[in-house]
Amino acid sequence: MDERRTQLIGTALGLFAHNPPEDVSLDDVAATAGVSRPLVYRYFPGGKQQLYEAALRSAADELEQCFAEAQTGPLTRRLVRALERYLAFVDQHDAGFMALLQGGSVVQTSRTHAIVDEVRRAAADQILFHLGYQPGGQVAGPRLRMTVSTWITVVEAASLMWLDQDKQPPVNELRDWLLDHFVALLMASATRDAETARIVRHALDLEEGDGPVGELARRMLPVVGDKGHLLDVPGKA
Amino acid sequence: MDERRTQLIGTALGLFAHNPPEDVSLDDVAATAGVSRPLVYRYFPGGKQQLYEAALRSAADELEQCFAEAQTGPLTRRLVRALERYLAFVDQHDAGFMALLQGGSVVQTSRTHAIVDEVRRAAADQILFHLGYQPGGQVAGPRLRMTVSTWITVVEAASLMWLDQDKQPPVNELRDWLLDHFVALLMASATRDAETARIVRHALDLEEGDGPVGELARRMLPVVGDKGHLLDVPGKA
Repeated sequence: MDERRTQLIGTALGLFAHNPPEDVSLDDVAATAGVSRPLVYRYFPGGKQQLYEAALRSAADELEQCFAEAQTGPLTRRLVRALERYLAFVDQHDAGFMALLQGGSVVQTSRTHAIVDEVRRAAADQILFHLGYQPGGQVAGPRLRMTVSTWITVVEAASLMWLDQDKQPPVNELRDWLLDHFVALLMASATRDAETARIVRHALDLEEGDGPVGELARRMLPVVGDKGHLLDVPGKA
Repeated sequence: MDERRTQLIGTALGLFAHNPPEDVSLDDVAATAGVSRPLVYRYFPGGKQQLYEAALRSAADELEQCFAEAQTGPLTRRLVRALERYLAFVDQHDAGFMALLQGGSVVQTSRTHAIVDEVRRAAADQILFHLGYQPGGQVAGPRLRMTVSTWITVVEAASLMWLDQDKQPPVNELRDWLLDHFVALLMASATRDAETARIVRHALDLEEGDGPVGELARRMLPVVGDKGHLLDVPGKA
């Protein structure tokens, strides 16, 4: 009984992943699963909307698994691995991911929005966990939380642009670019927030010279090379 | 005739700005404007949906005006002024801004999404214009465009978080934080993209030591101060 339900959700997820929800009918799900339409309705009396939400729920659980990562080694290495799993998920659920996040889709309700928000919150909690905030322990301050949430938004937006541009640039470039942006946003926030500065300084201690932060710093030098006038404190200061 | 239409749109915009769309009825609009319900229908036979879209159209035009800025002086000063106008708009249209961008609202359609996307595109075009790309002239490369679009997403997301946190931190702090993030994202992208690097170096020439970029650089020093190990090219490199 539950096995059949799981099978139908899996079928629906496959169809919703690569087709806009308005192009997926309950007949498609029944035909692809090799069952009758009434049988689909027996498990999902709410029809397509209920099946969509069950598929989304299942995708959300899978996505949250992507973020799990051991608490050892440089933070950027952990983040690279989580990003790779996330971007593989985006690659595998391309049309569904776009339909879900671009809005305007017929199946969007306050419930689907709540599921998406839950995934965002799980991602933020996971990043804060790796930055040293245990669940149930000390809570991160508003500026640090805002920085982390902002970066998650950047990841989502960049993933949508990437799909819209026929998955260009190559996924590894997108991953490195997102990682650079994580470092850049966190460093910029650290300059205005003592808590973020403390977290960043601790994270930098774990980084290696040949890791992404060291490489970013070295690549930055020629960009700012001869702009020393920006570091001179002006006479009026 | 057109004056009446403009008046009704203004009334609707005021109501939609501070109330979720589901809480605004055509009767509210008629009562607030001091006219009869049939008169509202004469101008907007499509009812509330048509009136909402007309109000959104009018708000979008107003918002696009926010981005207009003379092409002189340091780029960050121009951006600060545009950000201040944008954030004032967000402040003045708080509930409407949230309902529009958070999704799940009853009045959202592909047409309302198209209007929102048009505003995002106008904002991106305006930033690229100030970075030296004339309309109809050379087109910015994909990485630079992606960076600019990403930052616009950051601004939207941060504005929503700001409204959700009862407009905390103070708007000037939010503005400075968004400006820091613009600089940080652009600098990070410049380290991987020759075109962005050229644009950034040109923009840095226009910046002043007591401007936001100089201040960001000086605030960055104590954060990275003793992390010199990250700049050492390791033996295996």
